[in-house]
Amino acid sequence: MATVTLISDAEAGPEVRAVFDDIRATRGTDYINNFWRALAHDPALLAATWARLKAVMGPGALDPLTKEMIYIAVSAANACEYCAHSHTAAARAKGMTEAQYGELLSVIGMAAQTNALVSALQVPVDEAFLI
Amino acid sequence: MATVTLISDAEAGPEVRAVFDDIRATRGTDYINNFWRALAHDPALLAATWARLKAVMGPGALDPLTKEMIYIAVSAANACEYCAHSHTAAARAKGMTEAQYGELLSVIGMAAQTNALVSALQVPVDEAFLI
Amino acid sequence: MATVTLISDAEAGPEVRAVFDDIRATRGTDYINNFWRALAHDPALLAATWARLKAVMGPGALDPLTKEMIYIAVSAANACEYCAHSHTAAARAKGMTEAQYGELLSVIGMAAQTNALVSALQVPVDEAFLI
Amino acid sequence: MATVTLISDAEAGPEVRAVFDDIRATRGTDYINNFWRALAHDPALLAATWARLKAVMGPGALDPLTKEMIYIAVSAANACEYCAHSHTAAARAKGMTEAQYGELLSVIGMAAQTNALVSALQVPVDEAFLI
Amino acid sequence: MATVTLISDAEAGPEVRAVFDDIRATRGTDYINNFWRALAHDPALLAATWARLKAVMGPGALDPLTKEMIYIAVSAANACEYCAHSHTAAARAKGMTEAQYGELLSVIGMAAQTNALVSALQVPVDEAFLI
Amino acid sequence: MATVTLISDAEAGPEVRAVFDDIRATRGTDYINNFWRALAHDPALLAATWARLKAVMGPGALDPLTKEMIYIAVSAANACEYCAHSHTAAARAKGMTEAQYGELLSVIGMAAQTNALVSALQVPVDEAFLI
Repeated sequence: MATVTLISDAEAGPEVRAVFDDIRATRGTDYINNFWRALAHDPALLAATWARLKAVMGPGALDPLTKEMIYIAVSAANACEYCAHSHTAAARAKGMTEAQYGELLSVIGMAAQTNALVSALQVPVDEAFLI
Repeated sequence: MATVTLISDAEAGPEVRAVFDDIRATRGTDYINNFWRALAHDPALLAATWARLKAVMGPGALDPLTKEMIYIAVSAANACEYCAHSHTAAARAKGMTEAQYGELLSVIGMAAQTNALVSALQVPVDEAFLI
Repeated sequence: MATVTLISDAEAGPEVRAVFDDIRATRGTDYINNFWRALAHDPALLAATWARLKAVMGPGALDPLTKEMIYIAVSAANACEYCAHSHTAAARAKGMTEAQYGELLSVIGMAAQTNALVSALQVPVDEAFLI
Repeated sequence: MATVTLISDAEAGPEVRAVFDDIRATRGTDYINNFWRALAHDPALLAATWARLKAVMGPGALDPLTKEMIYIAVSAANACEYCAHSHTAAARAKGMTEAQYGELLSVIGMAAQTNALVSALQVPVDEAFLI
Repeated sequence: MATVTLISDAEAGPEVRAVFDDIRATRGTDYINNFWRALAHDPALLAATWARLKAVMGPGALDPLTKEMIYIAVSAANACEYCAHSHTAAARAKGMTEAQYGELLSVIGMAAQTNALVSALQVPVDEAFLI
Repeated sequence: MATVTLISDAEAGPEVRAVFDDIRATRGTDYINNFWRALAHDPALLAATWARLKAVMGPGALDPLTKEMIYIAVSAANACEYCAHSHTAAARAKGMTEAQYGELLSVIGMAAQTNALVSALQVPVDEAFLI
C-alpha cells in the first residue's frame, strides 16, 4: 500500500486526465500503472515526470531497450522494488531476451562489487582516465 | 590516496604478476590501472575479481559498450568517483559518442528521480508486472 | 515479518518498560509502534535511540513538521519502506498538507536526479561554494 | 576534474546560452556554477534540468530555505560531495542559521541511523501508518 | 514474487544441478534457498556467484560468524530485504547470540549516522589517517 | 574542505572542550580528528555522537576490532571517503592484519554483489529464514 491513494480515472481532474490520455496514446494501451496514479495527487509533478520520461526513454542515440536496461541497473543499485519490476517488464516488452537479462544482471553484480571495493579502498583516480 | 599502497610491478609476486600479465594481454596495453594495483595486496581477491570481470564484460548477448554504459549507471547510483571516471574512459575507448553519453546521463537522472519518488510513495507493484 | 519478534508489553523488562512509558507520555498515545518493539531486544539500543530521537525531533530552530519532512527525504533516498510510511504518517499528524507533500516529493525527486548526474559527471566543487 | 569539460560562455551555442541567461536572470548573479557547465554538453538535458529545478525550488507551499535543507538531506544520504557543498551554500544564502544547520544535521544523522536499523531488522509497517 | 521464476530441481539442467549439488554438500542440507533458484536462469552467473561465495565465506583469517555479521552490515546499508533475512538466519545458525546481534545493530546504526554526517559536512580526511 | 570550519582548541567553548578532553582521555592521545572538530559547531550533536560512539565501540559481546570492521563495511556501502579512511586506520591500530583486511574486503565485495542481484531480481524471502 502506498502513502497515498491511487487516483482512479473517475477521480482525475482535467490536468491529470490529459496526462493519462497521453500515456495511453504513447504506449498504445489503456493500462495506467500505479506509479502514475500515485503521482497524480500532484498534477504538476505528474505532468513534469511524464513529459521528461517520454522524452528520455524514446529512440535516439541509444535504443529504447538499452535505455530500459540502464534503468534496471540504476533501480537495482537503489534497491527500488517497484522500479525493478516495472522496468524489467518494460524491457521484456521491448524484446529483452533471457540471455541479455542474464548478462545485464552479471554486469550489475560486477559493478556493485567493484564499486564497494573501490569505496572501501578509496582508490585514487588514474591520471590516464582524466580528460 | 588509497587505504593501501599501490603494488608496483617490482613488488608483485608470481600470482599477482600472472594477473597483471593477463590484464595486459587482454587489453592490449601495458598500463595497469590503480584498482588492480590496490587489489593486489590480496592475490586471491585480485585474481577472482579480474577473472570475473573479464568473463562478464566481454562480448555476448550484449555488446561491450552497452555493458560499460550499464556499469557507469550503477557506479553513478553508488556515487563511486573512481568507477565513474574509469568506466566513462572505458566506454569512450569502446566508441561511446557524446550523444550516447548525453542519453545515458538522461536515463540515469530519470531513473534516480523516479526511484526516489517510488521509495517515498511506496507504490505497490502492479499485478500486470508480475510474471 | 522482522528478523526479531516484536516485544509485547508483557515481555518488556523494567528498562524497556521505562522507555515505552516515556514514548507514551511524550506522544500522548498508548500506541507503541513496531520499530520500538523490535529494538526492545537490546534495551540499551532502545533507550539510546529513543532518547536521541526525542531530543532531535522536538521543537527548536526548526519546527517539528520541517524535521519530519527532512526525515522523509533521507528515508526515501535510503529506500526505507518502514521509515517512509512511519514518517509520512507522522508528518501528516503534524499538519503536513497535500500541497506541502507534493512539493516535498518534487524536491526529493529533483535532488535524487541531480545527485546522480553529479556522481556520473564527477563535477568539481566550485571555489565559490567553499567557506 | 569532471568526466567532461566545463562549457565556457564562448563555447556555448544558442540553446545553452539561453539557459545560462535564464540562470543569471533568475538568480540575479552573473555566476554560472560548474554543474550547469558540465550538463551543457547535452543542451536538452541542461534545459530540462534547469526548467524543472527552477519550478521546483521556488516559493510555494514550502519556503525556498526549507527546500534547500531537504535537498541537503537527500544529497547527504546519496554521498554527493558537490551537492552537499552547493546546496549548503545555497541554504546559507537563503538565510539558514548555524542553529538551523545543526538541527538539520541532527535529523539527517538520526534518520540515517534508524533507516539502517530498520533495514537490518526488516520491521513490518504498522497497520496504523497505512492510509 | 521475483522478476523470474524459481528454478525447481526438475527444471535444472546439468550445470545448475551441479551447483545445487555442491550447495547441498557444502551446507549439509537438502534445502536450496530462493536466491540460487532465481540465479539459476543463468547457469554461468549461478556457478560464478556460488564458487566465489563458497571461497569467501569459509574460515580463514576471519571466522565465518564474523563474516556473516559483516554481510548483514552491508545488506542493511543497501536496504536489501532478502539479504537481511537470509544472512541473519545464517549468522544465527553459526552461533550469533542476541547480545552479539544487539551490538552488531548498534554499530550498524552508529556507522550509518556518522556516514551521513560526514557526507553532509564533507569532512576532509586527516593526514594522520593516510598511509 | 568541509562545509564548516574545523573548531580549534582555542575556539572551543566549555561544552566542546569537555568532549575533546574525554576523547583524549578515552583514546590516550592528544589528537582530535577532523570529524569531531567539524561537529563541534553544534555542541549538543557533538556530545551525543561521541557519547554514543564511546558506548557502542567499546568491548562487549563483540570485540572492538570486529566492530571496526563492521564499521568499514557500512562505510564502504555508503561510499563515505572519510569514514573508510578513519575506520581503516582505527582497525589497523586495533590489530587488523593484512590477511583480515583482505577477507573483509572480499566479504564487502561479495555482499554488495549479491545485494544488487537480489534487488534486481526481487527474490522473495524464504519461509525458512523467517523466525
